[in-house]
Amino acid sequence: MQLALDENTITRIMRDAFKVRTLRNDTEYALIDGKGLTVAIDTITASSDIPKGMRLYDAARKSVVACVSDFAAKGIKPQFGVVTITIPSSFTVKSTRDLASGIASAAKKFDLKILGGDTSFGELSISVCLFGYSKNPVGRDGAKIGDGIFATGWFGYSAAGLHLALSRKKPIGLFEIRAKKAFCTPNARLEFGIAASKHFSSSIDSSDGLAESLYELAQASGKQFLLEKIPTPLGLVEFAKKYRVKSNDLLFYGGEEYELVFTVPQKQWSIIHRLAIKHRVSLTRIGTVRSGKDIYLKHSSKTTKIFKHS
Amino acid sequence: MQLALDENTITRIMRDAFKVRTLRNDTEYALIDGKGLTVAIDTITASSDIPKGMRLYDAARKSVVACVSDFAAKGIKPQFGVVTITIPSSFTVKSTRDLASGIASAAKKFDLKILGGDTSFGELSISVCLFGYSKNPVGRDGAKIGDGIFATGWFGYSAAGLHLALSRKKPIGLFEIRAKKAFCTPNARLEFGIAASKHFSSSIDSSDGLAESLYELAQASGKQFLLEKIPTPLGLVEFAKKYRVKSNDLLFYGGEEYELVFTVPQKQWSIIHRLAIKHRVSLTRIGTVRSGKDIYLKHSSKTTKIFKHS
Repeated sequence: MQLALDENTITRIMRDAFKVRTLRNDTEYALIDGKGLTVAIDTITASSDIPKGMRLYDAARKSVVACVSDFAAKGIKPQFGVVTITIPSSFTVKSTRDLASGIASAAKKFDLKILGGDTSFGELSISVCLFGYSKNPVGRDGAKIGDGIFATGWFGYSAAGLHLALSRKKPIGLFEIRAKKAFCTPNARLEFGIAASKHFSSSIDSSDGLAESLYELAQASGKQFLLEKIPTPLGLVEFAKKYRVKSNDLLFYGGEEYELVFTVPQKQWSIIHRLAIKHRVSLTRIGTVRSGKDIYLKHSSKTTKIFKHS
Repeated sequence: MQLALDENTITRIMRDAFKVRTLRNDTEYALIDGKGLTVAIDTITASSDIPKGMRLYDAARKSVVACVSDFAAKGIKPQFGVVTITIPSSFTVKSTRDLASGIASAAKKFDLKILGGDTSFGELSISVCLFGYSKNPVGRDGAKIGDGIFATGWFGYSAAGLHLALSRKKPIGLFEIRAKKAFCTPNARLEFGIAASKHFSSSIDSSDGLAESLYELAQASGKQFLLEKIPTPLGLVEFAKKYRVKSNDLLFYGGEEYELVFTVPQKQWSIIHRLAIKHRVSLTRIGTVRSGKDIYLKHSSKTTKIFKHS
């Protein structure tokens, strides 16, 4: 039987070859000569990540935001980076400039220096590699029974924005406008992450989708996550009906949302809420860490399992 | 007039956008918080760098060697790296394994730890990003009048190997066998570079071709390089005739040769030769640094200018 080559298979092959615990841990941490270097690398390619019609400036900017978001979850300031850009030989000077400006604009926003990188010709891809130093980055395996599970922002916007982009429809109404914005020009929660991370027992960003992110924390910590509410934007249910998708798919399996998902010991809940207000970040306690495994969602009297994949 | 999008144009656009001196300096050096971090990044893509018929294992291994070679020229040990791999969805598990093994084998050879990275689907590309620390890496601008210009190894093999790969011909005879080997399974001069670099006044690797590398050093140092001999393998002239290419094109403009090209003050010529013998590296003093600019080659009574590009 021919094995299917899905992303998990690729990851397993690379992990075995390089003898690393995981190849998609988003950030890689190495304590070398006493310097705690953290590296995050994020690649987008035209065929996988850039829907037709998405502005190059936005796609390039987003490739930096995605990488910064990995640092936000660790509570580390990325200091500098290198970029690798593969450009189709059919590209114009203008499109190349748009691409460079998108990267430069995000670098400026997050106060990080692009040191340089490499360019080549081929299918469009942008790979951003960022660096920062920290002696104690937040891990994924520290969630304890009784900790609160928190999330910044709202879920579902980005997945809805992708639907709009793929269907090439103009956004109509507030929800769709926000969805488009969330997909095309997302932001990372860097300042809040840096300020608040010392109170996190475990943390991740939601870029692989909320369910995947929660599973990552729950599995790494050996715990069960019981969810009580998900920050759901007004208009999401109507959008799901209109486009015949499931609301839960938008909420849990969308990805490319750069919210922080983390656990906090009860004693520090109030300080976390104060920090969120200070940094103008919408923050919700979405559930509680329990003994056991997997992710469950409690609504009124019923508790249903949330699966890792839709 | 529509501007042509060549690699120099791309570099200029990126350089302007990121406000860096050069985007293709091979290694980027940053003294951040007193840590001298050096980063090199090298990307190969199927359409630009991997001729049909080249083994994936070899292509992947070579992507690491190319990056290690940048460190060899700086005299810095790369300590660890991250890899970004884009794989066509048509790939088999076997080809993915071959690719991973190629990277792992080079990492093992040069004693560097692959920390992790990122994978995505798209046109095949492998991007290797390596890191090392040094407080005083060798630059490109330190060549002084009277310094000797040195090169390790031989030139022309790799360009001939590319010809063989593109024409899909089996190598015949010693020169062609070595040419194929130089192209498919090159090595980097890391140990020699680390041991000898403290004696270099300027240094680069020849991966962009011998002429380009010499120009880079001469221009950065504001000097003229007068060449007296080029280490030319036996059989190169015959190969050039057979394949109707110019010998000088093979020698000067081939690229993907991972030899070191560097300048050394006269007082230290003997120690450099001793180090080459100790590290079993073939070393040739190919010329002398003079006042002026450009690259010239002196043969018998005639001196001809070597142009930057063929």
